[in-house]
Amino acid sequence: MSYRLAELAALVGGRVEGDGERPIAALRALENAGPDDLSFVTNAKFKALAESSAAGALLVGKSLAGWSGRDLLVADEPQLALIRILELFHPAPAYPGGAHPTAVVSPAATVDPSAHLGPYVVVGEGTRIGARVAILAHSVIGRDCTIGDDCLLHPHTVLYDRTSVGARAVVQAGAVLGSDGFGYASDARGHHRIPQVGRVVLEDDVDIGVNTAIDRATLGETRVGAGTKIDNLVQLGHNVQVGKHCILCGHVGIAGSTRLGDRVVLAGAVGVGDHLELGDGVQAAGRAGIRQSLPPGAIVNGDPAVDIRLWRRRVTLIAHLEEMRHRLRAIERRLATKGEEG
Amino acid sequence: MSYRLAELAALVGGRVEGDGERPIAALRALENAGPDDLSFVTNAKFKALAESSAAGALLVGKSLAGWSGRDLLVADEPQLALIRILELFHPAPAYPGGAHPTAVVSPAATVDPSAHLGPYVVVGEGTRIGARVAILAHSVIGRDCTIGDDCLLHPHTVLYDRTSVGARAVVQAGAVLGSDGFGYASDARGHHRIPQVGRVVLEDDVDIGVNTAIDRATLGETRVGAGTKIDNLVQLGHNVQVGKHCILCGHVGIAGSTRLGDRVVLAGAVGVGDHLELGDGVQAAGRAGIRQSLPPGAIVNGDPAVDIRLWRRRVTLIAHLEEMRHRLRAIERRLATKGEEG
Amino acid sequence: MSYRLAELAALVGGRVEGDGERPIAALRALENAGPDDLSFVTNAKFKALAESSAAGALLVGKSLAGWSGRDLLVADEPQLALIRILELFHPAPAYPGGAHPTAVVSPAATVDPSAHLGPYVVVGEGTRIGARVAILAHSVIGRDCTIGDDCLLHPHTVLYDRTSVGARAVVQAGAVLGSDGFGYASDARGHHRIPQVGRVVLEDDVDIGVNTAIDRATLGETRVGAGTKIDNLVQLGHNVQVGKHCILCGHVGIAGSTRLGDRVVLAGAVGVGDHLELGDGVQAAGRAGIRQSLPPGAIVNGDPAVDIRLWRRRVTLIAHLEEMRHRLRAIERRLATKGEEG
Repeated sequence: MSYRLAELAALVGGRVEGDGERPIAALRALENAGPDDLSFVTNAKFKALAESSAAGALLVGKSLAGWSGRDLLVADEPQLALIRILELFHPAPAYPGGAHPTAVVSPAATVDPSAHLGPYVVVGEGTRIGARVAILAHSVIGRDCTIGDDCLLHPHTVLYDRTSVGARAVVQAGAVLGSDGFGYASDARGHHRIPQVGRVVLEDDVDIGVNTAIDRATLGETRVGAGTKIDNLVQLGHNVQVGKHCILCGHVGIAGSTRLGDRVVLAGAVGVGDHLELGDGVQAAGRAGIRQSLPPGAIVNGDPAVDIRLWRRRVTLIAHLEEMRHRLRAIERRLATKGEEG
Repeated sequence: MSYRLAELAALVGGRVEGDGERPIAALRALENAGPDDLSFVTNAKFKALAESSAAGALLVGKSLAGWSGRDLLVADEPQLALIRILELFHPAPAYPGGAHPTAVVSPAATVDPSAHLGPYVVVGEGTRIGARVAILAHSVIGRDCTIGDDCLLHPHTVLYDRTSVGARAVVQAGAVLGSDGFGYASDARGHHRIPQVGRVVLEDDVDIGVNTAIDRATLGETRVGAGTKIDNLVQLGHNVQVGKHCILCGHVGIAGSTRLGDRVVLAGAVGVGDHLELGDGVQAAGRAGIRQSLPPGAIVNGDPAVDIRLWRRRVTLIAHLEEMRHRLRAIERRLATKGEEG
Repeated sequence: MSYRLAELAALVGGRVEGDGERPIAALRALENAGPDDLSFVTNAKFKALAESSAAGALLVGKSLAGWSGRDLLVADEPQLALIRILELFHPAPAYPGGAHPTAVVSPAATVDPSAHLGPYVVVGEGTRIGARVAILAHSVIGRDCTIGDDCLLHPHTVLYDRTSVGARAVVQAGAVLGSDGFGYASDARGHHRIPQVGRVVLEDDVDIGVNTAIDRATLGETRVGAGTKIDNLVQLGHNVQVGKHCILCGHVGIAGSTRLGDRVVLAGAVGVGDHLELGDGVQAAGRAGIRQSLPPGAIVNGDPAVDIRLWRRRVTLIAHLEEMRHRLRAIERRLATKGEEG
């Protein structure tokens, strides 16, 4: 399947600079693209790479319009244009409605006829599954769960009883939602399990990564806000509240009862202690260890995490420690000599 | 289902201060409880929150007895009382004995008739499964495994061959016990797998979290002591020995052949190097990096982990580095001036 | 099954010092071995432990030849000898060719007749599975995948569509290969998924650990080089390129588009930022946080990661901070006194 550059421009509401009749066979990265391909430069820092690319045409934003010597597709929002063109060349697989003969679905579950249940899927009683949902092979959905319309659950997803997933969620393989919180009452005899009788609620448009674990609340709800995206191998403890449109990268861990505001961004392997509060828009660099609550808009790094400028300053100061020690010794020597001289 | 406050007090061996006839419909957290609900204050620091709660009655310990203006259930051990009341209001699901027709059970396995095997469970030959065990959907139990009485294995649990699980274990979804240790003999040609021919043994009353991985020993046993509780996404390397009544929180990683004593507590994302020894009662704060053996009772933080008071002192010192540098410069200037004066 | 020591020596091309007729019933660790057992000392630091072992015979390298008072099996490459003897005493389980009746295999898949498909395995259309492959219970192989000869996929492995696995791979339970990369275009309305249309390629002789996640590329390939071994709970972001014969230990995380050269070794829980380049032979100690590209042969520790000698120096300097502060104060006092004197 091939498209003319002008067709792609029309699709994304952009305009062509150069030859709109140029045929485009595929969308490829700069280093792999050839003369029949469209590639893209959504960040000016890749301009040098783009110069050396063999790509026949380039998708760019307005700031790169007028760039000479190449056919251009100029879009107002080049990343959104990129998404639409990728979807055109690589349509998502279609999952026909109906249950595979091996699916074990409780007669007391309510499954929309347009929902797809793959091989060996198990659905418990009282569970409701919305329209156009796809639940892929070997996923286990407990009792009294709710799955909103247009969700995609990849193979081996597990939902414990009473978990609620909003519309349009995408859950990657092996993710587990609603598992027992890690709560014990400890005494001299040992650790006694505190029953975890709450549940997990994902609002609409939440994505969950591979093998991520979200524990249900002791009482009430562990909740992930609308539009929040969670990466692989993340751990959310019981009673955690995540706001809307947050980004939690791989290996992030958030301990019990902590609350995140909206649009919080935690880079890879950030850890957040229990019973903390992170305000709206907090950002933490990779591997930060957040041991205190943070006000809205705080940008932190390090462990214990501090303001990122302060962290940079401290890293620099530590790099100068050797020198400081030498200077200290030099002063001591000088004073010692003076003392003798005196 | 509703209970009178006096009934609940009788159940937990506590006493009522106020109206024992008060009907209790549910147990809820302070912030969600209403006049028909019991809530709880097991820690005096939540007393202010309790004041503002709409809860009809409160479960408290002796230290809060006599608190005015609220019906109280006073218990000697309020956390254990909480557990019993939660179990009353939220009885654990019952799993009837017998195997789902889709379970694939080796004829050479021995399964107690009271054990429950869910849909698509696979049980290998030579495996013995005790009384009242529940193995939920899609769990795969290898050959020659032993599962003690009253265990609960959530969906998608995997036990490799020869794994032994003691009585009353609870294993969360996706946990893997007995996987190959990560051991190679390396030379110029590459890395050659060393066969891992040992096994994993969990003693009684061990809990295992979601997607946690415990590798079997190269030879002999990787062992987790009785009463130890392990959270989600934890990794135990081959030959690790964990003592009794330990607590290992989410994302903890312990490298091969390390030994933990009894009642060790490792908070979230703590890492422990290989071939180390942590004495009884060692505690490590979240994200500590333990690179050396630790004596019994050590309480550490930081990376490399040190005594927690020393760690706090160092964090403070680092926070004063800028100031130290200024003072150093001031001295240098003064001496330089002196030199000129001299 | 018992072997004479001389037989074992012949098997591994080694020689006996002492009684070649000694019967050997098992290979055990030093602390568990008895008079009928062979144990091993592949590292001279365990010599003291070996002295006190009850092992009847010891496998050692040349450097320990001539050690008195014990029957010895002396091998040029004692670790490789250990592997062969372990394989002799503990042969790997055989997996007969053919599919379990419960396996759901697309008629448009090509499965070698010698391949073993366990209970409830699912194989998608267009997928090709090589000779002597074993895919164990509940694994889900997507469409258009390729699995080379002699691979072993443990229970609950998931391969997304188009994943390619080279010959002789061993994949532990719950690992997920080819999942969606974590890529979004963000604007005021939220985060918009960028379709991830690439794939994951494992070259030959790659091992993958329990519940490890490898995301497919946005475009093109996420690739793991031949002979690379990856441990449990590791996360590789989209477009990551790992070279040949690397070792990535448990909980390692590598962010998107980063490239590792050959023979890179990352110890447990090391994190590597996105779009970085680590040269051949780079080594990082456990929990290092790599925030910049590193030249070939760099050996680093700490966060931010620096040369390991520099890191050690800094750890020492920080340990002396308290003392430096005291010395600074002493100088200030002395100068203050002088000032007064003056």
